[in-house]
Amino acid sequence: MAFRFTLPVRFDDVDHAGIVYYPRFFHYFHQAFEEIFRQRYGGPAAYVSLLDDDRVGLPAVHCEATFKRPLRYGDDVDIEVTLDRLGDRSVTLAYKALKGRELCAEAKVTCALTNLDTFQSMPVPDALRALFESL
Amino acid sequence: MAFRFTLPVRFDDVDHAGIVYYPRFFHYFHQAFEEIFRQRYGGPAAYVSLLDDDRVGLPAVHCEATFKRPLRYGDDVDIEVTLDRLGDRSVTLAYKALKGRELCAEAKVTCALTNLDTFQSMPVPDALRALFESL
Amino acid sequence: MAFRFTLPVRFDDVDHAGIVYYPRFFHYFHQAFEEIFRQRYGGPAAYVSLLDDDRVGLPAVHCEATFKRPLRYGDDVDIEVTLDRLGDRSVTLAYKALKGRELCAEAKVTCALTNLDTFQSMPVPDALRALFESL
Amino acid sequence: MAFRFTLPVRFDDVDHAGIVYYPRFFHYFHQAFEEIFRQRYGGPAAYVSLLDDDRVGLPAVHCEATFKRPLRYGDDVDIEVTLDRLGDRSVTLAYKALKGRELCAEAKVTCALTNLDTFQSMPVPDALRALFESL
Repeated sequence: MAFRFTLPVRFDDVDHAGIVYYPRFFHYFHQAFEEIFRQRYGGPAAYVSLLDDDRVGLPAVHCEATFKRPLRYGDDVDIEVTLDRLGDRSVTLAYKALKGRELCAEAKVTCALTNLDTFQSMPVPDALRALFESL
Repeated sequence: MAFRFTLPVRFDDVDHAGIVYYPRFFHYFHQAFEEIFRQRYGGPAAYVSLLDDDRVGLPAVHCEATFKRPLRYGDDVDIEVTLDRLGDRSVTLAYKALKGRELCAEAKVTCALTNLDTFQSMPVPDALRALFESL
Repeated sequence: MAFRFTLPVRFDDVDHAGIVYYPRFFHYFHQAFEEIFRQRYGGPAAYVSLLDDDRVGLPAVHCEATFKRPLRYGDDVDIEVTLDRLGDRSVTLAYKALKGRELCAEAKVTCALTNLDTFQSMPVPDALRALFESL
Repeated sequence: MAFRFTLPVRFDDVDHAGIVYYPRFFHYFHQAFEEIFRQRYGGPAAYVSLLDDDRVGLPAVHCEATFKRPLRYGDDVDIEVTLDRLGDRSVTLAYKALKGRELCAEAKVTCALTNLDTFQSMPVPDALRALFESL
């Protein structure tokens, strides 16, 4: 089931053109990614424990995004996350940024399961596989 | 001729995993984009004048990036920018982030020429066409 | 009555030393400031309407902060806001950043009521005076 | 001798009011702080080596700032750094943000010399003492 997370456009999220600075969208998507771990995997410390205790990281190896409508200060943004592809050693999540029913941006981000001690790729652990399949 | 711009990884550019937070790469690319205007188009006020006086903006409508090697605090990053495609109403620039000779990330970002009063697309003005063709 | 707002330390809020980058504390305080308007003044559009329709802004003219304990990724932060001083043309709010019962940082930020068309100072409007006195 | 470092206001440094978001000033000051190490202490890796090899950090424990004039996109900012006070276990640097001859902001930031393994305070090492006295 898709994961949904709502966040407000913050005062400093906009650029000189008065719209959300496009790299900020990836920050929005990452916040939703962090919330998945918080809400579905084990609370506030779940992701930090994965990184620090298990030494498992999920650095982005590829991303692409299409920006359709600008977001502005005062808007609330719904981020919707679904599973796009679950590989042996990577996962691709699909993100939408919605303002009400209007699609403002959509993206796919592929993360490689990575041993943080060696920075080598590793298979997706079962618990994470279940988490991603829940999306 | 490709445009090159060097910047240091800053103290706050890294995330909890100790590597540059991936959305920050797009911020690096945007800084290089701004420098193109500064260095090849008319000084520090060139881009702001384009936006505020001419009311011409270049919001990103599409981007994609591949991340190959992590960057860390203390690294210097060379951003290399070339023209990928110049359309009637948009431009796609290609970016590389290099650490010495190592390619750390590469990206393409498409910007739509936009009338900032109406937020409608518009043809690439001749002066900008020449600027992008210089890359 | 003090205003309280809880936010998580985000993945990119830390610096290379692994603790929240100190300028980020002011960003946390500003998010709480924005939430005061959202929750006590008129919803998501309250602050943007003050700025864009009424042309009233509240730029910071002075701030000071003491940092007592570091915050780390995985921590949740409670921001507590109280009124420190309400002047004719400015307001000083006091902020605390707490991790559970531990005080991590405290700050005072003075904002000058400002006409955004002229960037001249102006008296605190009555509705804002009531808002700040509620803290 | 005062240290000077010039940086451009970046496209995303401004907020919805069209001026530099005030927490960003501290980021400007930190960039100048990092440049002191780079230019006067030992190159791009000097500060990271201090942190990672020597395990010496300089977290901010107190800061205060006065904001006098807004900065806008297109401005270049000169950051001027001088020594305010050198204690046994801390250092206070004074910062000015200038636009040409106009003083836009000034600040003092006190950093505590800190053993990063224990997060306990420590005496200012001689090499750093000399560095700060050079300012």
